[in-house]
Amino acid sequence: MTDVSITRLSAAQADFDDALSRLLAWDDSVDHQVNESVRHILHEVRTRGDQAVLEFTARFDQVDAAAVSELEVSQERLQQALAAIPVDQRDALEKAADRVRDYHQRQMQSSWQYEEADGTVLGQKVTPLDRAGLYVPGGKAAYPSSVLMNAIPAKVAGVAEVIMVVPTPGGTVNEMVLAAAAIAGVDRVFTIGGAQAVAALAYGTDTIPHVDKIVGPGNIYVATAKREVFGTVGIDMIAGPSEILVICDGETDPDWIAMDLFSQAEHDEQAQSILICPNAEYLDRVENSIRNLLPTMERAEIIATSLNSRAALIDVADLSEAARVSNRIAPEHLELSVADPQALVEEIRHAGAIFMGRYTAEALGDYCAGPNHVLPTSGTARFSSPLGVYDFQKRSSIIGFSAHGASEMGKIASVLARGEGLTAHARSAEYRIEGSAEQGGVE
Amino acid sequence: MTDVSITRLSAAQADFDDALSRLLAWDDSVDHQVNESVRHILHEVRTRGDQAVLEFTARFDQVDAAAVSELEVSQERLQQALAAIPVDQRDALEKAADRVRDYHQRQMQSSWQYEEADGTVLGQKVTPLDRAGLYVPGGKAAYPSSVLMNAIPAKVAGVAEVIMVVPTPGGTVNEMVLAAAAIAGVDRVFTIGGAQAVAALAYGTDTIPHVDKIVGPGNIYVATAKREVFGTVGIDMIAGPSEILVICDGETDPDWIAMDLFSQAEHDEQAQSILICPNAEYLDRVENSIRNLLPTMERAEIIATSLNSRAALIDVADLSEAARVSNRIAPEHLELSVADPQALVEEIRHAGAIFMGRYTAEALGDYCAGPNHVLPTSGTARFSSPLGVYDFQKRSSIIGFSAHGASEMGKIASVLARGEGLTAHARSAEYRIEGSAEQGGVE
Repeated sequence: MTDVSITRLSAAQADFDDALSRLLAWDDSVDHQVNESVRHILHEVRTRGDQAVLEFTARFDQVDAAAVSELEVSQERLQQALAAIPVDQRDALEKAADRVRDYHQRQMQSSWQYEEADGTVLGQKVTPLDRAGLYVPGGKAAYPSSVLMNAIPAKVAGVAEVIMVVPTPGGTVNEMVLAAAAIAGVDRVFTIGGAQAVAALAYGTDTIPHVDKIVGPGNIYVATAKREVFGTVGIDMIAGPSEILVICDGETDPDWIAMDLFSQAEHDEQAQSILICPNAEYLDRVENSIRNLLPTMERAEIIATSLNSRAALIDVADLSEAARVSNRIAPEHLELSVADPQALVEEIRHAGAIFMGRYTAEALGDYCAGPNHVLPTSGTARFSSPLGVYDFQKRSSIIGFSAHGASEMGKIASVLARGEGLTAHARSAEYRIEGSAEQGGVE
Repeated sequence: MTDVSITRLSAAQADFDDALSRLLAWDDSVDHQVNESVRHILHEVRTRGDQAVLEFTARFDQVDAAAVSELEVSQERLQQALAAIPVDQRDALEKAADRVRDYHQRQMQSSWQYEEADGTVLGQKVTPLDRAGLYVPGGKAAYPSSVLMNAIPAKVAGVAEVIMVVPTPGGTVNEMVLAAAAIAGVDRVFTIGGAQAVAALAYGTDTIPHVDKIVGPGNIYVATAKREVFGTVGIDMIAGPSEILVICDGETDPDWIAMDLFSQAEHDEQAQSILICPNAEYLDRVENSIRNLLPTMERAEIIATSLNSRAALIDVADLSEAARVSNRIAPEHLELSVADPQALVEEIRHAGAIFMGRYTAEALGDYCAGPNHVLPTSGTARFSSPLGVYDFQKRSSIIGFSAHGASEMGKIASVLARGEGLTAHARSAEYRIEGSAEQGGVE
């Protein structure tokens, strides 16, 4: 059941590019039936509000309530959870929260403006969103760390109201999730989930206020719903399965690397773990460690399926070639398990998070290093970033012309507007040109 | 034909909220047939590459070519266009480009990192995208200013290759658009458009390289295609019709305000122009100006349709109420045509761009003020920002633990991982705890 046979690739093989493409290929095509179902749910919640939320919650989560207000979790209940969890867990959550808060405060962007010689003022005003929605999965695995990672950046940004939704299938509540919400300063919590929760946050209902942006991971229904409501609200990203790429120089304890690969593979069967090393013999040793350690793992079957279907051990000529392959992959998590990570990181262009050196296990980043664990997957690190404070701030351009500045700029704008055939634009600008025929002046 | 009858609202009326909602309502529902058609085009280009691009270009743009390479516009041709356009247009474009470049350079984000007492290093590495795609509409109205506004932030960010696509329906090339591409430093230009151009940029073909992000405005086919490829590549935003909101204290020449409202309305029939003023009599005067000036406008019919169907003149109690209504609307363009714009801007939370004072016509911002004219529409300024350099940069978290730091953090991560049932995460962290049973150490 837990036999492993991991794909071996060599960057030197003739078909390496194609083989790597096949390995990375991830079917993100939208399932037609999921789509239809999600659209139906969105439509129902948009038009029937609370009543639709109650019906879907009864149907999908087997939770019956007479009113959505019954599904709200009070601040007292959150504090109760915080008081009830084991003290070591509470300590760990609080320490993690402190570190996450400290790191994220450094991401704050501020307004700026400058004045030109003629008194023209240009700038950018930075403001927080009014309200953010945070989706937290229930079901299979509940992740209190997700609550911290999603809510803290929003609160650091200054979002006035963070509204969390978390399904409680069959009524099962995760106390650590509620405790994390208390620590992170979540303002309101509703025990709803699925596409109906996304719809409620996007459109608002009588009981649940609409938000400006929805963040947080979820299953295919949640992801599809987020994609559909994108535009009505902001969304963070559509996450694929989790991945780790380890570049190792062949000098780290192979058991450590095996366990680091496991730590992604245990997330789910589609998670991807890749090791790149310029030493083929070391790849053998890691594979041995994998075989030895696997039977000792609680989630051995998930790990085995993930490793057999999506993992790879890749042999390269040197660390520079490893970096090139890594840039091609643009991994979510990148471990540089090498003697001189500082030198190697210079060659890395695309990665969600980079873990420097042998001691920096990816798992530390998942919980308490400080940086966010919500990271771009499936190669999207080519164009996107970890979740951050910047996701909860937005900018407004500031433009203020003096009378003279407006007159000078008006001449340029007039030429360009007439070049584009937009006469009202041109005349609007021309009114502000000093001494122009159009100019009436300020009354 | 060009009669106008503009909706009047008062913030004091009992049904103001509902009336405002109806006014703002914008049907962004996706047309099923457009969707199907776009999916077909995406699929064809994804699977058949160049050949499909050629077929769709022949069908939709009536441009026949034997190879996609024939549709590429050389750098020489761009320079030719720049040399050929009237000198005042070239001057205006170059001055606008300089100002846009100067403003956007101030948006550059840089990498940062910090070291903790125990040697742990945390930070964020900021890098440009490798390649960006820029969609420029052809057809009805061609906008060279769009080329500047989309390409310059990418080049300022350090994007190595900016690839522009612009359809040339019936073979019509806009020389100013090509000249703008030359000035902005666009690297490659293909005369293709529609969903097929978006597909080519997202997936790549033999001739057209795939990009990491696609920006720029387009019709419903382009917008739908961008929404579909979102995830494979980044996209900027799904733009709705353009809008302007003017808050006036009643002391600006009403002709100026009328023309400012026209400058949005002339974009298209669905553009929205709203004026808010605490002086109802002034609203009458602006309406008079509108009636007087409209017959003199080249695009009078478009303006009339836009004003009749989507504009409003809104009476409020005072400027603070005007700001509250504006925040509710979250306009793309906001003119503060008042005596003290600096005081009023303090009350503004959501807007794409804010134009300060009577002299700062919105049209100046469209062309040459410096800030970007690609702005969030349809209320999305609640959660999104003007296009900027930050759209062409992305971040990677940097995490580097010292042996001691990893040991301390490992203890916290272990507790949290075990709390989440993720044993491989826990053990991966525990390997790094000094003196732990798991610790094997570095070889």
